[in-house]
Amino acid sequence: MPSRAVSLRNRPVGMPTPDDFQVLEVDVPDPGDGEVLVENVCMSVDPYMRGRMWDRKSYVPPFQVGETLTGGAIGRVVKSNDPGLPEGEHVESRFGWREAFVAPAAELRRIGELEAPASAYLGVLGMPGMTAYAGLLEVGALQDGETVFVSGAAGAVGSAVGQIARIRGCTVIGSAGGPEKAAHLTEDLGFDHAIDYREGNLLARLREAAPDGIDVYFDNVGGEHLQAAIMCMRPNGRIPLCGAISQYNATSPVPGPNNLSMAIGLGLTLRGFIVSNFNHLRADFVRDMTAWVKSGELRYRETVFEGIDRAAEAFIGLFTGVNTGKMIVNLEA
Amino acid sequence: MPSRAVSLRNRPVGMPTPDDFQVLEVDVPDPGDGEVLVENVCMSVDPYMRGRMWDRKSYVPPFQVGETLTGGAIGRVVKSNDPGLPEGEHVESRFGWREAFVAPAAELRRIGELEAPASAYLGVLGMPGMTAYAGLLEVGALQDGETVFVSGAAGAVGSAVGQIARIRGCTVIGSAGGPEKAAHLTEDLGFDHAIDYREGNLLARLREAAPDGIDVYFDNVGGEHLQAAIMCMRPNGRIPLCGAISQYNATSPVPGPNNLSMAIGLGLTLRGFIVSNFNHLRADFVRDMTAWVKSGELRYRETVFEGIDRAAEAFIGLFTGVNTGKMIVNLEA
Repeated sequence: MPSRAVSLRNRPVGMPTPDDFQVLEVDVPDPGDGEVLVENVCMSVDPYMRGRMWDRKSYVPPFQVGETLTGGAIGRVVKSNDPGLPEGEHVESRFGWREAFVAPAAELRRIGELEAPASAYLGVLGMPGMTAYAGLLEVGALQDGETVFVSGAAGAVGSAVGQIARIRGCTVIGSAGGPEKAAHLTEDLGFDHAIDYREGNLLARLREAAPDGIDVYFDNVGGEHLQAAIMCMRPNGRIPLCGAISQYNATSPVPGPNNLSMAIGLGLTLRGFIVSNFNHLRADFVRDMTAWVKSGELRYRETVFEGIDRAAEAFIGLFTGVNTGKMIVNLEA
Repeated sequence: MPSRAVSLRNRPVGMPTPDDFQVLEVDVPDPGDGEVLVENVCMSVDPYMRGRMWDRKSYVPPFQVGETLTGGAIGRVVKSNDPGLPEGEHVESRFGWREAFVAPAAELRRIGELEAPASAYLGVLGMPGMTAYAGLLEVGALQDGETVFVSGAAGAVGSAVGQIARIRGCTVIGSAGGPEKAAHLTEDLGFDHAIDYREGNLLARLREAAPDGIDVYFDNVGGEHLQAAIMCMRPNGRIPLCGAISQYNATSPVPGPNNLSMAIGLGLTLRGFIVSNFNHLRADFVRDMTAWVKSGELRYRETVFEGIDRAAEAFIGLFTGVNTGKMIVNLEA
C-alpha cells in the first residue's frame, strides 16, 4: 500500500526550517503473522523531539537523516493478522511521522473504547498529560493548597499541570507568550494568575503574583524562567525539570541560572525527569485524568494542522509559540 | 571579666581582608540565675559565614557591622548558676568569635564526656561532620557500592563525606587544590582517586577517574565543578548542594552550569540543604561518627591558628585554600 512518511533531509542547525524535512512516498507491506496494518488518525509533534535531531549522546539515540521520524500517534487497525487486536480498534504507537504502518500487535497500546476524541490520547490523556501528572504529583510532591508556578502554561503539558494543581486546591500561576494565551489561562482554565512573559519584567510580575513565594515551579522552558522562579521559591520548594524549550535550538551552551546557590539555604530540590520512568502511576493517571476530562473539570485545547505535508510546519510552530494546547497533525481525510 | 571578641569593621567586598575585621575588648558579666560563664577552648570559622557578611536576605539574617560574629565554639563552664550544668563541663555554643561569654544554660549543648579532643566537636563530630553525614546519606540517598565524587574533599565536610562513602563500600573520587591535598586524600583518607583541580582539565580527569559515571556528586564548591560533575552523572544520580565556595566572594552573579538541562534526560536530582534541618539524624550521627573516629576508620586533620587575634586570618584562609581539614582557632593558652 503506498503511503507517506516524514524524515530529516538534514540536521537542523538552530531553529529548524521546513527545508530540513522531507515527505517521502513509502510502501507499507501487508501484515504478517501477529501483525496489524494501522492507518494513523493523528500524530504528535513534541518539543523533546528537537533534542533527538542533534547528533549527540542522550537518553534516546539521535534521529538519523533519511530515517522516518518517530513519536506518538493514534491510529486505527484496518487489517489484522492478530486475533487479539481486531480491525477497528484504536491504538497508540510510537512509530510517529507516517500515515500508515505495519507492526506486531504486541508493540501497540490498545486504547479500548474512546472516552474522548482520538487526538486527546496524544495530549491530555496521553504522554503530555501523563508528564504533567507524574511531574507535578510525584516529582513535585505537590501538597494540597500550595502555590504552583508553571511555564509554558498554555502548552499541552503546562495547561494540564496548572489544572491538576487547581483541582488539588492550589494557587496557580502560569506564564505563556502573548496576551491571548495569558487570557486563556485565567478565563478558560481557571488559573489564578497569568503572566505574558513577552511583556518583560518576568521576575517583578512573578513576585507580584506570588507575594508569599512559590512551593512548586514546574519548569518547561529553562533559562530566564528558571532563574526568576528560584528567586521566588519558598523554603523546601520543589522544581520538577521537565523541559527547556528556550534552549532546544541554541547552537552553543546556554549559562544556567546565576542564583542556583540559593537552593542551598532554601533547601530546594530540582529534579529532572522523563515520563517513561513513571509507568507505576499509569493506572492512577488514566483513572483520574479521564474522570476530570469527562466531568469538564480539566479542559484542553488543540492546535490542529491538516495533513502530513504540514507536519514540519507544526513542529517548527512549537518553538515560535503557534500552538495553544496540544499541537496535533490530523491525518484523517 | 575583661575578654575579647571579633566583629566586622566593615562589610567585605569580594575577598575579605584582615582590615574588614576588628578585635574588641568586651566585658563579660557575672552569670545570673540559670546562667553560666563559659571560656571558649576553640572556635570555628566556616565558609558559610561569608554569606552572612553580605547585606542581603537569606535563611539567616546578615551579620551587622560592630556586632560580635557568631558561629560554633567549644567551651568549658568556669562559673555556673545552673545546677544542671556544673563547672568543668564542655559545651557547644553558637555565640562564636569570642573568648568567653555568659548565657542561659538551656541555650548550650552539653557534650558530656569527651570522646576526642575538644576541637573535633567543631569538625568531624560537630556541624561539618553532621553536614557530611546528613548530606551524603539522606540528601544524597547513598547506596552501598555507588560511585561518589566530592569537591572540597580536603576540607572539613568533604573529607568526612569521602570517608563515609568509603566505609559504605563506595568508589570515592575527591577533588582538592594542590598536590599535597590530593595526596592526602588517597594516602591518608583512603579515597580511590584524587584530582588536583588546579592542574586544569577537570572534566577530562573526572571522566578518567569515573569512566562509568557518578551516582552521587556532593557539591561544596559550585561553578566549574558542578558543571563537570553533571557531564559525568549516571541516570538517576543525586547532587546534594552543600556549598558554593567558588562563588562566595563574587561581587556579581555567577552563571550556573550550562548543562543543567541534562538533568532532565538523566533524571538527576539536585537538592540544596542546610544541616539544621536534619536534627532527626543527630543520634545516628553521634553513634556512627564517634565509633568510626574511635576505631580509626574515619580520620581527620585540622589546621590550627593560635589566638583570637588570628581568627580573621584563619577565616580568610578558607578561601585561599590554606586549610587541610577543619580550620580551628585555638583559644586556650
